Amino acid sequence: MTPAELRLSAREGRWTRPTAGACAGRVQANLMVVPREAAFDFLLFCQRNPKPCPLIEVVEAGRTEPACAPGADLRTDLPRYRVYRDGQLQAEPLEVRELWSPDLVAFLIGCSFSFEEPLAAAGVPLRHVESCVNVPMYRTNRPAAAAGRFHGPLVVSMRPIPAGLVPLAVQITGRFEQVHGAPVHVGAPEALGIADLARPDFGDAVEIRPGELPVFWACGVTPQAAALASRLPFCITHAPGHMFVTDLENAALGR
Amino acid sequence: MTPAELRLSAREGRWTRPTAGACAGRVQANLMVVPREAAFDFLLFCQRNPKPCPLIEVVEAGRTEPACAPGADLRTDLPRYRVYRDGQLQAEPLEVRELWSPDLVAFLIGCSFSFEEPLAAAGVPLRHVESCVNVPMYRTNRPAAAAGRFHGPLVVSMRPIPAGLVPLAVQITGRFEQVHGAPVHVGAPEALGIADLARPDFGDAVEIRPGELPVFWACGVTPQAAALASRLPFCITHAPGHMFVTDLENAALGR
Repeated sequence: MTPAELRLSAREGRWTRPTAGACAGRVQANLMVVPREAAFDFLLFCQRNPKPCPLIEVVEAGRTEPACAPGADLRTDLPRYRVYRDGQLQAEPLEVRELWSPDLVAFLIGCSFSFEEPLAAAGVPLRHVESCVNVPMYRTNRPAAAAGRFHGPLVVSMRPIPAGLVPLAVQITGRFEQVHGAPVHVGAPEALGIADLARPDFGDAVEIRPGELPVFWACGVTPQAAALASRLPFCITHAPGHMFVTDLENAALGR
Repeated sequence: MTPAELRLSAREGRWTRPTAGACAGRVQANLMVVPREAAFDFLLFCQRNPKPCPLIEVVEAGRTEPACAPGADLRTDLPRYRVYRDGQLQAEPLEVRELWSPDLVAFLIGCSFSFEEPLAAAGVPLRHVESCVNVPMYRTNRPAAAAGRFHGPLVVSMRPIPAGLVPLAVQITGRFEQVHGAPVHVGAPEALGIADLARPDFGDAVEIRPGELPVFWACGVTPQAAALASRLPFCITHAPGHMFVTDLENAALGR
């Protein structure tokens, strides 16, 4: 299935499930849509926090077709959306045509799916994939850099990596700065203010086996958490795991 | 002289000359100041054109002290400014306190001074430095990615490099993505629409000797050119060569 086929399938209401593993090799993106009056602050928040908020593309007010996916429509081509008002979840619709207006600015933010493919290809095991669960994510005690109304903690994802493979995992993900890049921390969850790895704030806990270290990457939930904490009157995101599939090749993001 | 001492000296009107070579090892930055209503478009222009417009810091409306230079004041601490109205140069004052308002947003953009130090340290000759002239710069036939009202050509700087040292020059500057990074082109000026290297659009022509190739880097004049072409009602920049000297270490930008 090509990205265009998947997007059409989502548009027609046939594909409504998560996109993990779909369209292998293609970049998938987080979606955050905010009113124009908040767009400068949100863009600045992303600029100040490039590891959790690596921008793939910004689609200005009045447009719905990103350059990274010609023919796509951001109002319909994700499998499922979330709609928030005043920071409260209001709905999880399959499309948001009726809710869209020429006042909205859309941000496509890189997602760790892009670096998990090269990690797996290099023989780095991914416990949450093996276990068929969501990657565990944690709020940390490190604040993200604030910008205007947007502020909040750095959120990280965690993958247990065999100690001897940690350098390889750092090097591979470090090549992918547009999708979170190298880890922000290795080994000591308490240094990030994480009390219990078995109780993630988002996603699902995974087993850490003897000889493995917990490795922490900046996570794309960081900007969503900041957007919600700011109690924007209105915003739209993708539903967790239901990403926007672009035409970009993961390989093109590496260097 | 420390960066703080140089900034104080500029503030007191004692340092009014260009900053090339001052405060060795510290990051110097281009300044662009625009009204708040244009700030989203300009930030997006920088995001879409990271090679010519690598952001060091954005200083929001209401602030004049950047995080990269504690104690500094952007209204006074550059040796010389340029003031534009409707895209026309109006003045080149030594400070802009009277012109500043809480409506202005300041952008600090990386400058190639930061990568010229490691180039020279690695034995790559820099003809414009040897010749004590400004680096030659050229408008190209490649458009920068537009954002809102901002559009214009990619502007490049050119340094003649002995052919055998081109790979080294690419590798060294490629480590400095926050100050233009790797070259955008090597060798063929006509491919960039440059008719005559002896007639640069900005700066001064330099000799290209036998065995040398012209190597082209994205240039920080690109965002200024776009800002002027957009006929902003009002903007402030540094005067050419009269940069803002930050406390940041060049070495900290490399990777």
